[in-house]
Amino acid sequence: MIEQPLQADPQTVAEGVNLMWVLVAAFLVFFMHAGFGMLESGQVRSKNVANQLTKNVLTWGVGVFAYFFVGAGVSAIVAGLTTGGSIDGAFTYINGGSTVWANWLFGAAFSMVAASIVSGAVAERAQLGGYLVFTVFVGALIYPVATGLTWGGGFLAELGFQDFAGAAVVHMTGGVCGLVAAYVVGPRIDKYDEDGSANVIPGHSLPYAILGTLILAFGWFGFNVGTAVEVFQVTESGELALGDYAYAGRVALNTALVMGAGSIGAAAVGYARQGKVDTLMTANGLLAGLVSVCSIAAVSSWGGTLVVGLIAGIQVPLVFEALERVGIDDVCAVFPVHGSAGLLSALAVPFVDTTSAFSVSQLVSQIAGVVILAVWAATITFLIYRVLKALGWARVTREEEIEGLDASEHGLETYPEFGQSFLDDVTVAGHADGVDSTDGAPATDGGKVADDD
Amino acid sequence: MIEQPLQADPQTVAEGVNLMWVLVAAFLVFFMHAGFGMLESGQVRSKNVANQLTKNVLTWGVGVFAYFFVGAGVSAIVAGLTTGGSIDGAFTYINGGSTVWANWLFGAAFSMVAASIVSGAVAERAQLGGYLVFTVFVGALIYPVATGLTWGGGFLAELGFQDFAGAAVVHMTGGVCGLVAAYVVGPRIDKYDEDGSANVIPGHSLPYAILGTLILAFGWFGFNVGTAVEVFQVTESGELALGDYAYAGRVALNTALVMGAGSIGAAAVGYARQGKVDTLMTANGLLAGLVSVCSIAAVSSWGGTLVVGLIAGIQVPLVFEALERVGIDDVCAVFPVHGSAGLLSALAVPFVDTTSAFSVSQLVSQIAGVVILAVWAATITFLIYRVLKALGWARVTREEEIEGLDASEHGLETYPEFGQSFLDDVTVAGHADGVDSTDGAPATDGGKVADDD
Amino acid sequence: MIEQPLQADPQTVAEGVNLMWVLVAAFLVFFMHAGFGMLESGQVRSKNVANQLTKNVLTWGVGVFAYFFVGAGVSAIVAGLTTGGSIDGAFTYINGGSTVWANWLFGAAFSMVAASIVSGAVAERAQLGGYLVFTVFVGALIYPVATGLTWGGGFLAELGFQDFAGAAVVHMTGGVCGLVAAYVVGPRIDKYDEDGSANVIPGHSLPYAILGTLILAFGWFGFNVGTAVEVFQVTESGELALGDYAYAGRVALNTALVMGAGSIGAAAVGYARQGKVDTLMTANGLLAGLVSVCSIAAVSSWGGTLVVGLIAGIQVPLVFEALERVGIDDVCAVFPVHGSAGLLSALAVPFVDTTSAFSVSQLVSQIAGVVILAVWAATITFLIYRVLKALGWARVTREEEIEGLDASEHGLETYPEFGQSFLDDVTVAGHADGVDSTDGAPATDGGKVADDD
Repeated sequence: MIEQPLQADPQTVAEGVNLMWVLVAAFLVFFMHAGFGMLESGQVRSKNVANQLTKNVLTWGVGVFAYFFVGAGVSAIVAGLTTGGSIDGAFTYINGGSTVWANWLFGAAFSMVAASIVSGAVAERAQLGGYLVFTVFVGALIYPVATGLTWGGGFLAELGFQDFAGAAVVHMTGGVCGLVAAYVVGPRIDKYDEDGSANVIPGHSLPYAILGTLILAFGWFGFNVGTAVEVFQVTESGELALGDYAYAGRVALNTALVMGAGSIGAAAVGYARQGKVDTLMTANGLLAGLVSVCSIAAVSSWGGTLVVGLIAGIQVPLVFEALERVGIDDVCAVFPVHGSAGLLSALAVPFVDTTSAFSVSQLVSQIAGVVILAVWAATITFLIYRVLKALGWARVTREEEIEGLDASEHGLETYPEFGQSFLDDVTVAGHADGVDSTDGAPATDGGKVADDD
Repeated sequence: MIEQPLQADPQTVAEGVNLMWVLVAAFLVFFMHAGFGMLESGQVRSKNVANQLTKNVLTWGVGVFAYFFVGAGVSAIVAGLTTGGSIDGAFTYINGGSTVWANWLFGAAFSMVAASIVSGAVAERAQLGGYLVFTVFVGALIYPVATGLTWGGGFLAELGFQDFAGAAVVHMTGGVCGLVAAYVVGPRIDKYDEDGSANVIPGHSLPYAILGTLILAFGWFGFNVGTAVEVFQVTESGELALGDYAYAGRVALNTALVMGAGSIGAAAVGYARQGKVDTLMTANGLLAGLVSVCSIAAVSSWGGTLVVGLIAGIQVPLVFEALERVGIDDVCAVFPVHGSAGLLSALAVPFVDTTSAFSVSQLVSQIAGVVILAVWAATITFLIYRVLKALGWARVTREEEIEGLDASEHGLETYPEFGQSFLDDVTVAGHADGVDSTDGAPATDGGKVADDD
Repeated sequence: MIEQPLQADPQTVAEGVNLMWVLVAAFLVFFMHAGFGMLESGQVRSKNVANQLTKNVLTWGVGVFAYFFVGAGVSAIVAGLTTGGSIDGAFTYINGGSTVWANWLFGAAFSMVAASIVSGAVAERAQLGGYLVFTVFVGALIYPVATGLTWGGGFLAELGFQDFAGAAVVHMTGGVCGLVAAYVVGPRIDKYDEDGSANVIPGHSLPYAILGTLILAFGWFGFNVGTAVEVFQVTESGELALGDYAYAGRVALNTALVMGAGSIGAAAVGYARQGKVDTLMTANGLLAGLVSVCSIAAVSSWGGTLVVGLIAGIQVPLVFEALERVGIDDVCAVFPVHGSAGLLSALAVPFVDTTSAFSVSQLVSQIAGVVILAVWAATITFLIYRVLKALGWARVTREEEIEGLDASEHGLETYPEFGQSFLDDVTVAGHADGVDSTDGAPATDGGKVADDD
């Protein structure tokens, strides 16, 4: 033995490298928060931008504590209670140490994705305070129950329900919460005319929305590929082996392709109808594609992924309009993007799973899973937001909504130099002479703009 | 043997860690897409922003399929055909499995960098449809031929042509495609006066352009350092060894320094001429610096890198103006930033290579390489865009261009509250009736938008 | 021996994986540069945006050379001189090779964080040239002395001063530099009325500031967790062992939680006083939280972290207002966010360190450390900026400041279509009296901007 060189212990190699990977993935998922912030704030009017951004920042602020002190433990309790397992160690992670905490962070970032989805649905009229109360429930209860039933090893896991990266657990849950919250809060004042016809209320900045989309897509690689969480495993006989990394490349491929499918699907719908490609819808299609791959990324062939992603993209404008027709004002289209696309993904599992033949029992498990998760999310959201409404915390007043939430909730203007108020000033202006002066105004159609000296 | 502890198998360690690294690098390169989106949309007028962003989103959408189903295979075929090698396995990657797909993704992200470059050159007047057709060709043919000849082991590789991270293969190729496409499409209506003098048409948002620049710089670390793709290798005798990581730190250092050199070079030109530092040019200099290090990053001393980066920065404004003078309207300066800086990098290899003495034959190889790649890119782009032009797909109509591509191609306004249309409305306002029209509704046609009074 | 399978050499495993990790962390810290760019440019008026962005781009440009050619060596010299150690190898890193350079890049990215902080304090009136000269001093001298005394093993290290990820070394140093520079340069013209009362001068884009905040938070994971720089160590007996990774998860957890605490703390102050949550202050609170965890992240319990983060958030608006009262115009609140929060973090070490009991001597060391670092940063900054002032390089002229630095320093407009100039044209257009009011500065002169009704 003495001449033998020292060697790298498999356990140490696995622990160090796996920890590194889960941290990198968690950072990427965290960055999705910036994506949501831009995506959502771009889709609101300039009088509500600061409010949307504040919600985004404080979603992490309050939600991460809810998930740390309560939620992650609730998840373990739910898993135990629904399977007759023990719930004794449910909260041990709180003092768990380095590896436990790193894995907790990965979960926490996921939980805040679910929470962030909601703020897009109730934008431009939900009260900050009530929204934050709801966020606490998402982090402490709604999302943890979903994970406890599934990834935590609870009832749905025993049933065989599969949801690799959370199409149902994270996205559908978040999308349903958003849908129901938007329903209870009611549509924005300007959304419907007296005859019930819906108005388009364009967001104030398309570039923010697209930037947010691409930041989300970047972070989504951490979300999906990072869910292949173990680079290495140590076999029972003590050898080092590739862990989930045996399929990480498949997840990466499917993630890369499904964006294309989703964006093309949504773009095609607009083109087929109006001969024009809607930019925001195309971006939403890309995101719906990413949602739709979450359940299937680790097992689907690229062919299956393409079909699912294409459907996910196509359904975005259709579902969005259907919601509009029934009077639900889902400002940032979070239900089509996260809700129905997440549902689609979970139901697609038995059809695209290359690791096992189609089985009716798998399909039944998937249906049971999405029904239970959706009913859970819908019921609890309805209850909480009804209570918030009764307390007067759900929605700002009519006057505040018209004035804009930036003024009423935050006492500020997002764009003091050329935002809403500027608009008011100009409109108020209305003087004949004011007009000419803008004639040659900066920039624009002539384009000889150029000379700035 | 029995007392000996189990050990980590070198092959497994290498496979797992290398896969992790290539995935992280691929994610970073993917994120460059967001950088291009911001960089380019900031440089167009507000009437063309949505169009630029749509092109960006759909470049990935259609391009990644072109590269997956065709391009990566074409690369292997080109390599085989030009060297008498076999082309049998050209398309095996399509069902290649985890590691193959992860490496494919890294390549796909590179291919979409080349494609994205083009959209900046033809901005503000190229049709969306024709542009997307061209993008399919970039992903399926133009870029794959370039990689097949070089990294794939084809003719130029046999010739000894060196291009570590793709200064010529990715950037010069993309830059030449953009240049030729811009030439065929022709300049924007407002670009030249009747006397042929060029106008400056400033983009609508400098902060987007700078944010895009810094996102690109961030992703570029994945692009360059990630090209040192193997953390570990297994030696022939089966031992674990550091792979490309033996020089990864050199690549990282050169990448960090060259940004500085490029930005200072470009800033200095502006300062020397006008006593002022041009912000956008400085950012373009930073990017040109990054391009200029791509061929040499793994072998150059920091001294060589500084000289090359400085030249790359200095040439940006000069080449840009030269193009303007000959009537080519390269909106986002993609040729100076990617084309000529890429050329410079490839030609610099024999002069700065610390691993071997200067050799004329190396210089000849480099010249042959850039000439062949440039001729290939120029010829095929010319042909494709001429056909597109003949079909009426290359460019929007004069009316559409004046109105803006957001309206004509997408039927929307990027900034409904304070963008172009608002400006128009105000101008229209000149007339008594115009006033009413702005009354209740900043922003837009569709929206009986938001009564804010 | 012959039947024994080959094995992974611990040294090789450690070297490859550690190098990968430090590179990923360095990339993330580099990306903080984009965060500072957005955070700061969002907080200035539209007439000074290009200037702020140019400073940001060129901070890296000139600063990274200062740190490469001088700074990193100065750090080693300071360490040697203050401890009687050798300074012979101080500059060997310049030709150090892959691993040395990768670690250098991590340090360089840190140094540029310190430098970037300063530009936020002196925004809207500091000359570009003088600022860049100061940046050279930050990279070559100010920051290196701080690191040499501490992380480099100098006098403060011998004293037992602890500052894990640089709350004092990076943030407090940068914050003090910014504070003193802002003091010497003097407040913006519009900041104070004749009676000495301070005006609020809102920045032109809150979304940029929030996006910058979230980019910074993302990069901060690299800053903090990456400081746990060694994934693996090789023990003296030659075995592979977990290195700093034994506590990397703790750092990640504390980083994730402290953002929440800081943002809630700052939001609560605004709510308690005005019944409204200030968006920007909330974001600054988040950042101050991140600063406040830097010294303690590796050793603090989550409980300690929460308390420290909460205090860090609460003190932001209070310290900011105190500075306002004494006449210091710290535009982007860099002292409250980086300076005082960094001080807090360093002083908190003995109180929250779970690895050792509270000791007065540790507290004394911490006090000595922050005093020495703060005095150093303040003194040298005062001297340099006084000289710059004497040379006429510190500040633009009154006319240039009123016109805006984009025009005077860069000869351009950041938003040619709907920015400042448009505002001028339109307002000027209107009424005779309108003219005076916009004279110096739209959107401000009183700074009582705010009132839009």
